[in-house]
Amino acid sequence: MDIKKEQIATWFRGLQDRICNALESMDDQGKFQEDIWQREGGGGGRSRVIHGKVIEKGGVNFSAVHGKMPVNISEKLGLSPCDFFATGVSIVLHPVSPMVPIIHMNVRYFQTTDQSSNNKQQAQTWWFGGGIDLTPHYVVEEDACYFHQKLKDACDKHNPAFYPEFKKWADDYFYLKHRNETRGVGGIFFDHLNEKRGLDRESAFKFVQEIGDVFAPTYNHIVLKNKDLAYGEQEKEWQAIRRSRYVEFNLLWDRGTKFGLDTGGRTESILMSMPPQAQWFYNHRTEPGSQEEQTLKMLRKELDWLTEVKSKK
Amino acid sequence: MDIKKEQIATWFRGLQDRICNALESMDDQGKFQEDIWQREGGGGGRSRVIHGKVIEKGGVNFSAVHGKMPVNISEKLGLSPCDFFATGVSIVLHPVSPMVPIIHMNVRYFQTTDQSSNNKQQAQTWWFGGGIDLTPHYVVEEDACYFHQKLKDACDKHNPAFYPEFKKWADDYFYLKHRNETRGVGGIFFDHLNEKRGLDRESAFKFVQEIGDVFAPTYNHIVLKNKDLAYGEQEKEWQAIRRSRYVEFNLLWDRGTKFGLDTGGRTESILMSMPPQAQWFYNHRTEPGSQEEQTLKMLRKELDWLTEVKSKK
Repeated sequence: MDIKKEQIATWFRGLQDRICNALESMDDQGKFQEDIWQREGGGGGRSRVIHGKVIEKGGVNFSAVHGKMPVNISEKLGLSPCDFFATGVSIVLHPVSPMVPIIHMNVRYFQTTDQSSNNKQQAQTWWFGGGIDLTPHYVVEEDACYFHQKLKDACDKHNPAFYPEFKKWADDYFYLKHRNETRGVGGIFFDHLNEKRGLDRESAFKFVQEIGDVFAPTYNHIVLKNKDLAYGEQEKEWQAIRRSRYVEFNLLWDRGTKFGLDTGGRTESILMSMPPQAQWFYNHRTEPGSQEEQTLKMLRKELDWLTEVKSKK
Repeated sequence: MDIKKEQIATWFRGLQDRICNALESMDDQGKFQEDIWQREGGGGGRSRVIHGKVIEKGGVNFSAVHGKMPVNISEKLGLSPCDFFATGVSIVLHPVSPMVPIIHMNVRYFQTTDQSSNNKQQAQTWWFGGGIDLTPHYVVEEDACYFHQKLKDACDKHNPAFYPEFKKWADDYFYLKHRNETRGVGGIFFDHLNEKRGLDRESAFKFVQEIGDVFAPTYNHIVLKNKDLAYGEQEKEWQAIRRSRYVEFNLLWDRGTKFGLDTGGRTESILMSMPPQAQWFYNHRTEPGSQEEQTLKMLRKELDWLTEVKSKK
């Protein structure tokens, strides 16, 4: 039986609940605050924000919106005037400790229906997209390998070609061209998953569910391993610098942010990805031989965490 | 006698010197540090940064670059393959005190020469551009009026139509669409000043010189009036929030920043405009009746500071 869009939205809403519960258990202090919002043209969302003991500022958003597609968007997507339905979960977590990585996940479903067509089946377009990427303030190879292994395991259950392709896609996407550095150690990124990629809606949905479910246990493992490590002023300053690069990526390069703001999305939900605080130094240079310099050396595309990096050990 | 491009660059270089001297005298402690850089394709610049008692982080940059126009730029500007020459001064100053406004100025000259043409006179295109705008953390009407009056006086010496037109241009340019607020109290913005606007190169240059020279005394007046005002934690936090809006404008909307980064400009010189530090709160709300709320109400287009606002008093 074919999956209905309502089932997809319901599953995403449940994913938001499960992830929020898992993060609250891990954080041990923070509780999510919820804002429910309605979209004028149809649908709405639940924005949830946490300020906890481990997570300094984190957002876990769910939305399911629908209506007539604004002309500026349909033109961008190369579509005729149509109705649309979009649902998904978006997460960015900024931890208190510089020893704990920032993490981001987005999973989403998009569907359009051509208003002028008489044949409903023919006129519908749909796809899934998403991604997870990890942004350590200090790159710890073991954690990056663990993270990539979990993503590869999840991908491999569905198609062994997914991980290599989606890992490369993440390297290219989460990249600060003006700094010639990656945002972090990457992860996976994918878009337009549908029949053209040999996936019916049910199997594409199953893959996206797999990815959604891998998020909380994987991040919690990395947090618990690192959250009690000691740090001082120097590490906090470096965290503030790395956070400023996160800001630069999201405002200069992230297509999701641009698309959301250009098309009148809810600004506060879109910019919940901003860190609580960031610092910019003119022409900052790391100390030769320092941990900070070591991290910068690892912020590059095409590092193969699962064979090359692991086998060095 | 027609002005040569070298004379324009020399004057801009001198302007950088004069402004740096005036700011150092005012700051009473900070000294500019200089980085001299060369551009691979031709030319270079002098980036100067100050960390002082009054100015927490400020940049005053001069550059004069030339060479073959990269194809991606000439296409953006709608020009055939050509040689270019560009020179200018760019300034952003972030003060320590939240009671002192952030200020920005840019004055620039651009010239292209069509390589394929035999007639040099015909094939040359040139224009001046620029702008000054003031971004108070707390809007003080008297200071905004003073600032706009100085800009109007400078404009009026050249053409009484300039101030109203360039003031509106600044309102439209320094605008955060996603926040529905202006960056600050505006100022003036202008571009493509040349014969098409009824200005020969000499008179356009004289106007730009007038604007360049109005910067230091005007800003120093506003700084000296406000720099010793008392403030506390609440004002520092509000400053950090306003600084985050400055970041959002520069990375999301500023065409100069985008153009610079897209075309391989020197990243550290372009992003010297970033504040030393910024904070983001999810869905921040000002207290009803507070000074912060009062400021937000003034961050809108089409406030006529010189008649409407003044006459309220």
